[in-house]
Amino acid sequence: MRRTTLPNGLQVVTEHMPASRTFSVGVFAGVGSRHETPALHGASHFLEHVLFKGTARRSAEEISAAVEAVGGELNAYTTKEYTCFYARVLQGDAALAVDVLTDMITASTITGSDLDAERAVIQDEIAMHADDPGEVVQEVVAGHVFAGSGLGRTVIGSPGSIADLTRDQVVRHWRRHYGPSSLVVAAAGHVDHDRLVEQLASLDARPHGPARRPPKATAVNSRGGLVTAERRVEQVSAVLGYPSPGLFDDARYALGLLSLVLGGGMSSRLFVEVRERRGLTYGIDAGETTYSDAGLWSVDWQCAPNKLAPIVDLVRATLAEVAEHGVTEAELARAQGQMRGQTVLSYESPSSRMSRLGGNTVLGDQRDLAEVLDRFDAVDAGQVQAAAATLFSQQPVLGLVGPRVPAKVLRDWSS
Amino acid sequence: MRRTTLPNGLQVVTEHMPASRTFSVGVFAGVGSRHETPALHGASHFLEHVLFKGTARRSAEEISAAVEAVGGELNAYTTKEYTCFYARVLQGDAALAVDVLTDMITASTITGSDLDAERAVIQDEIAMHADDPGEVVQEVVAGHVFAGSGLGRTVIGSPGSIADLTRDQVVRHWRRHYGPSSLVVAAAGHVDHDRLVEQLASLDARPHGPARRPPKATAVNSRGGLVTAERRVEQVSAVLGYPSPGLFDDARYALGLLSLVLGGGMSSRLFVEVRERRGLTYGIDAGETTYSDAGLWSVDWQCAPNKLAPIVDLVRATLAEVAEHGVTEAELARAQGQMRGQTVLSYESPSSRMSRLGGNTVLGDQRDLAEVLDRFDAVDAGQVQAAAATLFSQQPVLGLVGPRVPAKVLRDWSS
Repeated sequence: MRRTTLPNGLQVVTEHMPASRTFSVGVFAGVGSRHETPALHGASHFLEHVLFKGTARRSAEEISAAVEAVGGELNAYTTKEYTCFYARVLQGDAALAVDVLTDMITASTITGSDLDAERAVIQDEIAMHADDPGEVVQEVVAGHVFAGSGLGRTVIGSPGSIADLTRDQVVRHWRRHYGPSSLVVAAAGHVDHDRLVEQLASLDARPHGPARRPPKATAVNSRGGLVTAERRVEQVSAVLGYPSPGLFDDARYALGLLSLVLGGGMSSRLFVEVRERRGLTYGIDAGETTYSDAGLWSVDWQCAPNKLAPIVDLVRATLAEVAEHGVTEAELARAQGQMRGQTVLSYESPSSRMSRLGGNTVLGDQRDLAEVLDRFDAVDAGQVQAAAATLFSQQPVLGLVGPRVPAKVLRDWSS
Repeated sequence: MRRTTLPNGLQVVTEHMPASRTFSVGVFAGVGSRHETPALHGASHFLEHVLFKGTARRSAEEISAAVEAVGGELNAYTTKEYTCFYARVLQGDAALAVDVLTDMITASTITGSDLDAERAVIQDEIAMHADDPGEVVQEVVAGHVFAGSGLGRTVIGSPGSIADLTRDQVVRHWRRHYGPSSLVVAAAGHVDHDRLVEQLASLDARPHGPARRPPKATAVNSRGGLVTAERRVEQVSAVLGYPSPGLFDDARYALGLLSLVLGGGMSSRLFVEVRERRGLTYGIDAGETTYSDAGLWSVDWQCAPNKLAPIVDLVRATLAEVAEHGVTEAELARAQGQMRGQTVLSYESPSSRMSRLGGNTVLGDQRDLAEVLDRFDAVDAGQVQAAAATLFSQQPVLGLVGPRVPAKVLRDWSS
């Protein structure tokens, strides 16, 4: 792994994988919905769309055709904390991919008509998300736990905020958050680090950009409760959530193992209790969503409405049990083996390594995988129990999206 | 790539990738929904679930824990033509993964109570699929085009067929379709072919199994028309479909390139016309679903109901244009480059290679990638136009799932 910081603040981080014939590269901008004021809600994602619409050198069609003609993939995504534009190509097309990506994010024309075309597209995208109960329930729970913070707002924006965003606001958002010192270029696969740095040095003429201010610390709402949205579907999408530590909190190691014991696959406690032994749902998962300074730990499932109350009771009993009695040494060893193996497996591909390198670097996390795995191996059973006791002593929030909430659940959760 | 057929008919096909530290293995059984009578609708997928429930040597929890404890992944899926059980592990755990998979599919206990627990789970899974308009629309179109054939029925079954399936029927389905001569074991990554063959030779004691009969040839319904299902959602999920050639038809090469020109990414004709220039939808794709003896070529999108009629008109005009005037040499060259590049990229990982090797072998397709790519390169523009003219001279079927069908579309499509 090699890291270089250019004089203008742009960070370049790469991992050369000698056996790979492909090149994965991403440009990460440290901006997402948490950096938006309510009036700018959805601006980061809107900008991500608009940057595909054309530059001084290339029309929108030419941007995508340049990469697609060599069989490459070009796409982007926006999270609550950063935006990533990425390409995946054969090794011989690396310079082309970097040229297209840097052109897009630095030389976009951002015309008013392009903005309006994408405004219509995003309104459709909002409607698509609203039609997906499994996504909506994540958002209503995040909206409750992180109420008043940018982490509590959706990445995509609301119909109203998207309708109101002006070209001027979007261009200012771009200027403010895409300065070189806010950017990370990450690459993995067949990578020539020096050549990449040289190619990126041409961006060096650009001004340093405004100093980055850290986003406001996340305010966490620790009052649990019931949050719901109605959808006319057959199954209820449910999330039982608890506030949890952020990326830099050492508590994450014990917590990560706890998540595996409770929800890591078909041998986990929750899957075995709820699905394997009782057939109450098709699937049930548990785990944490981690942001730089806060997180949300949750159990997620879908079920028939008449199974909701028994599943909630069973889940809470399972969580209470582990908070009180902890995990066995065998469970801990299995979770540690699982963490190590699945980490190695999940970072096998150049694109997954690139995503990890870039995402972590843009959040300021430079720990390497080996170091992180050693920390997981050093956790003992007492620490896992302590993590469970801390986590589950909090008031949970129950999010439900689907048909009417069963009366028993309403009674149990009305306070 | 190495292939071995054991004396009992079991085929083993592997690809060793020296740089890989991981091992991906799949056991493919040549049975899916197309091999089911209406009374057995869903039996292949039901069986896939049940084979995870325990063997003489391992309980359900022990099956998943064996692989998950080393960080591996164990899962399965059922298609219309075959069923695949697969594992992905670190190289040192290869023998373990093969032992667990072969144990599951050959020594399952299939108890009545396990069957009933999974019956409830599958009823939930059916409800989940019914809640997803994008999946439902694919099925209603397939149900129209392949009416009366197994390809026209869902993999998962219906609430009624799943309620009625007996243990005896499921066990007979297993005995009939999981004989060694119906099975393919495929592996890729860090693979020792000889050792794998040796490990599988212990299965040799099993009888050869019934001779495989090819499934009934697919009857294709060439009457186009409108098929709909109502869902109370904001967006319409739409599919415009045409019957297309099967896997072994040489027409697939020209057709594959036509699909890229029309729907292969953000530089394709449909994306540029419908999304890029007019912002009518978030995304639009086109391409073929290919079975061994038949296929379905379709354009797929989601949109607001008031955009449906303009999009259908625009899509049909785009298809008519390419049928009449063909593609340019530049488009053909770009599609060929795209095909070559995306094929190399998409088979970079051991798991994708394993899936291709096993899936093709179980369908009787032994062409290697280089041969297939050469065939795409040999296609000329005249062949692409001929493919388009043949395809789009057929009556299309329009599938719509969502809110009420707009009056204009109803008028246009009523015959």
